[in-house]
Amino acid sequence: MAKVGDRVKVESKAGMHEGIVLPSQEDQKNVLMLKLNSGYNIGIKLDKSVKIKVIGSGTKLEKFPIVNLKENKGLPNISLVTTGGTIGSRLDYKTGAVHTLLKPEEFLANVPELMQIVNLKKISQPFAIWSQDMTYVEWQKIAQEVAKELNSGAEGVIVTHGTDTLHYTAAALSFMLKSLSKPVALTGGQRSSDRGSFDGALNLICAANYCKSEIAEVSLIMHGEDADTYCLAIRGTKARKFHTSRRDAFRPINDLPFAKIWKDKFELVNPNYKRRTNTKVIADTKFEPKVALVKYFPGADPDILNYYIGKKYKGIVIEATGLGNVSTNPLNKKTSWLPMLKKAIDRGILVCYAPQTLYGQLHQFAYSSLRIQHDAGVLYLGDMLPETALVKLGWVLGHTKKLIEAKQLMLANLVGELNPRIPEEAFLY
Amino acid sequence: MAKVGDRVKVESKAGMHEGIVLPSQEDQKNVLMLKLNSGYNIGIKLDKSVKIKVIGSGTKLEKFPIVNLKENKGLPNISLVTTGGTIGSRLDYKTGAVHTLLKPEEFLANVPELMQIVNLKKISQPFAIWSQDMTYVEWQKIAQEVAKELNSGAEGVIVTHGTDTLHYTAAALSFMLKSLSKPVALTGGQRSSDRGSFDGALNLICAANYCKSEIAEVSLIMHGEDADTYCLAIRGTKARKFHTSRRDAFRPINDLPFAKIWKDKFELVNPNYKRRTNTKVIADTKFEPKVALVKYFPGADPDILNYYIGKKYKGIVIEATGLGNVSTNPLNKKTSWLPMLKKAIDRGILVCYAPQTLYGQLHQFAYSSLRIQHDAGVLYLGDMLPETALVKLGWVLGHTKKLIEAKQLMLANLVGELNPRIPEEAFLY
Repeated sequence: MAKVGDRVKVESKAGMHEGIVLPSQEDQKNVLMLKLNSGYNIGIKLDKSVKIKVIGSGTKLEKFPIVNLKENKGLPNISLVTTGGTIGSRLDYKTGAVHTLLKPEEFLANVPELMQIVNLKKISQPFAIWSQDMTYVEWQKIAQEVAKELNSGAEGVIVTHGTDTLHYTAAALSFMLKSLSKPVALTGGQRSSDRGSFDGALNLICAANYCKSEIAEVSLIMHGEDADTYCLAIRGTKARKFHTSRRDAFRPINDLPFAKIWKDKFELVNPNYKRRTNTKVIADTKFEPKVALVKYFPGADPDILNYYIGKKYKGIVIEATGLGNVSTNPLNKKTSWLPMLKKAIDRGILVCYAPQTLYGQLHQFAYSSLRIQHDAGVLYLGDMLPETALVKLGWVLGHTKKLIEAKQLMLANLVGELNPRIPEEAFLY
Repeated sequence: MAKVGDRVKVESKAGMHEGIVLPSQEDQKNVLMLKLNSGYNIGIKLDKSVKIKVIGSGTKLEKFPIVNLKENKGLPNISLVTTGGTIGSRLDYKTGAVHTLLKPEEFLANVPELMQIVNLKKISQPFAIWSQDMTYVEWQKIAQEVAKELNSGAEGVIVTHGTDTLHYTAAALSFMLKSLSKPVALTGGQRSSDRGSFDGALNLICAANYCKSEIAEVSLIMHGEDADTYCLAIRGTKARKFHTSRRDAFRPINDLPFAKIWKDKFELVNPNYKRRTNTKVIADTKFEPKVALVKYFPGADPDILNYYIGKKYKGIVIEATGLGNVSTNPLNKKTSWLPMLKKAIDRGILVCYAPQTLYGQLHQFAYSSLRIQHDAGVLYLGDMLPETALVKLGWVLGHTKKLIEAKQLMLANLVGELNPRIPEEAFLY
């Protein structure tokens, strides 16, 4: 019989798999947990059809090394805020589950080089959750922690975070950190630290390099290509997770990255950034949670807007097609959104359009169908990413209940979220 | 006073604009309609602050030329199905509005070369609407028209269509045209035919070339780069409108294009296609309209699923984050989707996940959070595009009410919608 740590070949209904046997979970003793060569785990239900062949034995189940935090006086003071996610996790061979590194010292064990680049003034962990579980409440806590650190001597702050919603948080911090005067680098890992392809080390090193730069903006720092070579610093309001698993999953949309960053090199790409100063940073985190992102699709029933009206939502971002269209077909009353859009707007809901295409910008005057929607009171958000638009709408409506003011704020370019002159090379960057 | 056809400079609250005066619309006499140099129209409200300066006069307001359909016996018979959209429209200088070309002969005036490449057996127009107004009913009509033509001597069919939802229709035809044995080319225009940058001519020529090929698949044929050089033939289930306005807005996602097509050259890129045969094509168009596409975002209230349960929806595609996550945080009952997912599944709704990242594939076993959602009964749709997943779900549920059968069909690779081995070069193609 195969034991924990054995390398096995398993034939089952799910196909043929090779990997190392992990301990089963307490409540699932009839499931064989395997760590595949890809680094992923798979659970195989043990029934009569399953054939297991041991082809190696005794893989050592390591313990986490611990690194001591020592002050390195010659280097700039940087603070690190960890919040959970793959970069802050490691496979726990005892339980077979991914384990969150609760002690910051554990965390640093993965990137000892970091302490040759910056002096880690402080490591804090306001909470540790997976990024799919983030809400605006966590965004607020991170913003407060970052502002506190920047206002008490940190030259920059690195925030580590799960990658699934990292770009939403990057947008949130962009709006919430008012008068930002120093670099803030958000980063994460697409692969956990127990894998050979761990990307978090390079991401953290590049994030530290970013924190030493003059760019006083919230940036997302992740791999620039799938190889472990360099990272991109992408504006927090213009970033998107664009691949489920590649290390270079995050791409700038409708914008060039601020910079390409290597372990020992820094190449500025886009000079359109705010310079470092000594201004006090304000965590301006008020947020209206009654906002929603709705994706339009052909035949979508406009009645969905009734749901949001009934639930007293304050703002809705609709991912509209093309230059900013949903159906307004007067000949098809069942699928025309025009009457419901007008109703939602009449009830005081701020209804915005953002591009479902992601790349490019909306244009409310190119066709009469667009003008009809614009004239009905829909706010066209140019080239703003739908995810960024949602975050901005919650933030704006957290600051004013006056619709005219809120509309003006939505159309104002506060932190680079609007880019009326998109460079040609930004497409599919 | 400026007259229709005059070139003017207009200063208004909207800024400075230069263009040609178009006739005002009947119901909007106080709005000055201008055709800008960009080709777009703009409406400027005439009030006291508006200053108009005539800088040229008498632009000729042309009539549409008409081309006669003549049989060209040596060339393959191709049918053309027009359905409206920018490619089938032209600015009407009489009304200032975009006008749909109702007569096929008007349509061909834009691309006289087409008749040197193929013999246009028949031009039909089952309806003419903008693509944002399409529903599954129009998809069914197009599928029926295409099947009819293919079964009565056409070697291939070109379908012209608005671009906003062109990829949804391409996916729909991919599923609805059963036993497809000949090429079907969907195409459109990002710019109308009255503009210098009209792209529809090259698109149509390349679509005709595609129809002469051996590729018996539904393809979307649009520009491969912004210049007017060549087109891509993209698999109908793997295409996406990725830019609001560029001529090369449509890109293949998680797949390589079948081919690059020039006016006079055809370069095969991806040999993974079905070959042309003489099998009879079946328009298998049954469709369940009670399906929805829901985009997850941080903090999204899971109660939205209650709405769909209440409205008796049969299937839901959720655009999940990362490898296939929504919040399942047991510590935050207000935002955990797990109980509502289970409730929807208990009520017999087929709940699927598709990747919000668009690129890459979902993976239900990489983290325990993913396994929890999979074990609750959520169907993980690999690398299927959310838009394609929605269309497929409606088509599958139109064919079977048995959930087990529907799930098997959703996970089966029917027409290339699933690609477990995504080539490296497909990312940001």
